[in-house]
Amino acid sequence: MITLSSDFGSPYPAAMRGVLLSDTTTQLVDIAHDFPRQDVRTAAFWLREILPYFPPAVHLVVIDPTVGTDRRALAIKAGEHALVGPDNGVLIPPARALGDLEVFEIPIEDPASSTFHGRDVFAPAAARIHELGRASFPDDSAFRETTDYEDFAFPDPEITAEGVRGEVLVVDGFGNVITNIPGEVLQGRMGASVAVNGDTAPTARSYAMVAPGERLVTIGSHANVELAVNQGRGDEAFGVNPGSTIEMTW
Amino acid sequence: MITLSSDFGSPYPAAMRGVLLSDTTTQLVDIAHDFPRQDVRTAAFWLREILPYFPPAVHLVVIDPTVGTDRRALAIKAGEHALVGPDNGVLIPPARALGDLEVFEIPIEDPASSTFHGRDVFAPAAARIHELGRASFPDDSAFRETTDYEDFAFPDPEITAEGVRGEVLVVDGFGNVITNIPGEVLQGRMGASVAVNGDTAPTARSYAMVAPGERLVTIGSHANVELAVNQGRGDEAFGVNPGSTIEMTW
Amino acid sequence: MITLSSDFGSPYPAAMRGVLLSDTTTQLVDIAHDFPRQDVRTAAFWLREILPYFPPAVHLVVIDPTVGTDRRALAIKAGEHALVGPDNGVLIPPARALGDLEVFEIPIEDPASSTFHGRDVFAPAAARIHELGRASFPDDSAFRETTDYEDFAFPDPEITAEGVRGEVLVVDGFGNVITNIPGEVLQGRMGASVAVNGDTAPTARSYAMVAPGERLVTIGSHANVELAVNQGRGDEAFGVNPGSTIEMTW
Repeated sequence: MITLSSDFGSPYPAAMRGVLLSDTTTQLVDIAHDFPRQDVRTAAFWLREILPYFPPAVHLVVIDPTVGTDRRALAIKAGEHALVGPDNGVLIPPARALGDLEVFEIPIEDPASSTFHGRDVFAPAAARIHELGRASFPDDSAFRETTDYEDFAFPDPEITAEGVRGEVLVVDGFGNVITNIPGEVLQGRMGASVAVNGDTAPTARSYAMVAPGERLVTIGSHANVELAVNQGRGDEAFGVNPGSTIEMTW
Repeated sequence: MITLSSDFGSPYPAAMRGVLLSDTTTQLVDIAHDFPRQDVRTAAFWLREILPYFPPAVHLVVIDPTVGTDRRALAIKAGEHALVGPDNGVLIPPARALGDLEVFEIPIEDPASSTFHGRDVFAPAAARIHELGRASFPDDSAFRETTDYEDFAFPDPEITAEGVRGEVLVVDGFGNVITNIPGEVLQGRMGASVAVNGDTAPTARSYAMVAPGERLVTIGSHANVELAVNQGRGDEAFGVNPGSTIEMTW
Repeated sequence: MITLSSDFGSPYPAAMRGVLLSDTTTQLVDIAHDFPRQDVRTAAFWLREILPYFPPAVHLVVIDPTVGTDRRALAIKAGEHALVGPDNGVLIPPARALGDLEVFEIPIEDPASSTFHGRDVFAPAAARIHELGRASFPDDSAFRETTDYEDFAFPDPEITAEGVRGEVLVVDGFGNVITNIPGEVLQGRMGASVAVNGDTAPTARSYAMVAPGERLVTIGSHANVELAVNQGRGDEAFGVNPGSTIEMTW
């Protein structure tokens, strides 16, 4: 199985599908191709949350703002999974969620285009790893182990006696605000109100537990604190964006 | 084969794909993930029209505005097909189009999230039904037969001597207005004009049979009367929306 | 393998998927379903660029502005591939990129709808060709060889001593302007500036080689000259659209 993730929109992912299926026989599964353009951080978050639900697979990830420069191409063995993509940090959070990391450099050979390494570099490498097997691909001399790669980690929240100070990681397509604050801080507080950036809001187990249009603080499906509005947009109601500081006090 | 339908946009459906493929080996086929948010009626219409074109399959349907409340989770055996989703009516019109119904309740076990039953409740149930076989899953003790579920049916039009009074079921992405009026009422009238909500429009077999920008009344691909504009939007030209009354007189 | 391309948006492609999988067992691969509505030229360009990356397959293509008129339905054998779609030129550029052409007419039988030949005519024909085998389908008496079909070719650029005069073929979703000018004209000029419609712009191997927001002239992934902006839209910065004339002088 090979999964595909990119910020390419349409129809560029189809060329990657063609290359993959020319080079190997497998099931292709789309994660998403509408990740925000050139936004390494947002894609890294979603892939960290989603890829662990998959059985062992090769994950092709092309969020690649510096394509055509001297940034390197990586193949990472992570537990029983393999990830393939650019060396800009996007692979690291999902890889760490999948297992221990072994990182390899993929050689970039001419005549790859300078603008579409998804098709010309990463898809052929993903197909090759699928052919070789995820467990044994690192033995192939085409891949050279490296410890010199761009790392990336999301910030940790600060938990204090009076509350917690974290930040917004991403806003989903519904407008739900996903923070880096662990849902456990709400344990024992469900049904009560909390102060969020100085303004109170009720806590609730799910959206429909408050009236339509009302704000709520909940534990999202990623087990983090989410700020939401039932049948509305939490980002607008709470006035926050990815990167905004969130201070919650009890 | 398992089909997937939701109003999740992107990238949430990918987590359901991962769960399904972790729990069973099968071909996944997307119906759509951009159904209007929390709009049970529109999704029920499209699924009623589309699912009968499929071979026997398990159909995972997650249009779920009351996730996290006490609404139940259902698995329905309908002819040679099975449908899995929330108990809010969305499964019923497509299930009736696929065969006779046997309705079962899916237990919701902790520690499911309160906000993403598509991933935590419905996808595992769909995979289990695929593993057990669509014909024999009702024998599994995990599923309890029930007659207590939320029903849903689309309204019938009123056909009179002078014409017909129906309503708009949905508007498609092209702006074509799909009504609940059976296309047969136009038989013998093709090429003539009819009055629609008091204003005349020509009938025609297809869009390109009137000039670009012109209105037409046609028999759509669902065999219902459609109001359309060649290379334009019928909903705007006829001034109607889902739920609007349509009165046609001859 | 059957690939699917259309301008249907959502959820109409799902009905085609159902018909294909009812009639044959195969892997389905989406090219795109958001090709610009009724725009034969743009779809023909993308399919010419993308389909050659695929292994031998049946390609179902439904960009069909004259559905329901007397336009014919075609099946084309092109090398080891087959293409199925309307007789309006959309199949020809990709077919020529895949091999030598043999063109066949698909009979349109009642009771096909007049508005959705993708589901009622083309998908059944694509499934039948997949069942018969791409090599041998022309022997099936259901398909009648024809030399009478609508041809289509993109214009060639004019290369002169002082420069080149071409045109914009398409603008991609990033705003990159893809011209019909072969990338070779930039050989030996990389890093220099060229005049584009009277205004100079730097040439560069990739987007990130100029500052964010800066214009560049590059060789795109289709080996043609592209006008782009790093992290911006080339179409707006250069003030051009599909069909616009591009004059480059050295």
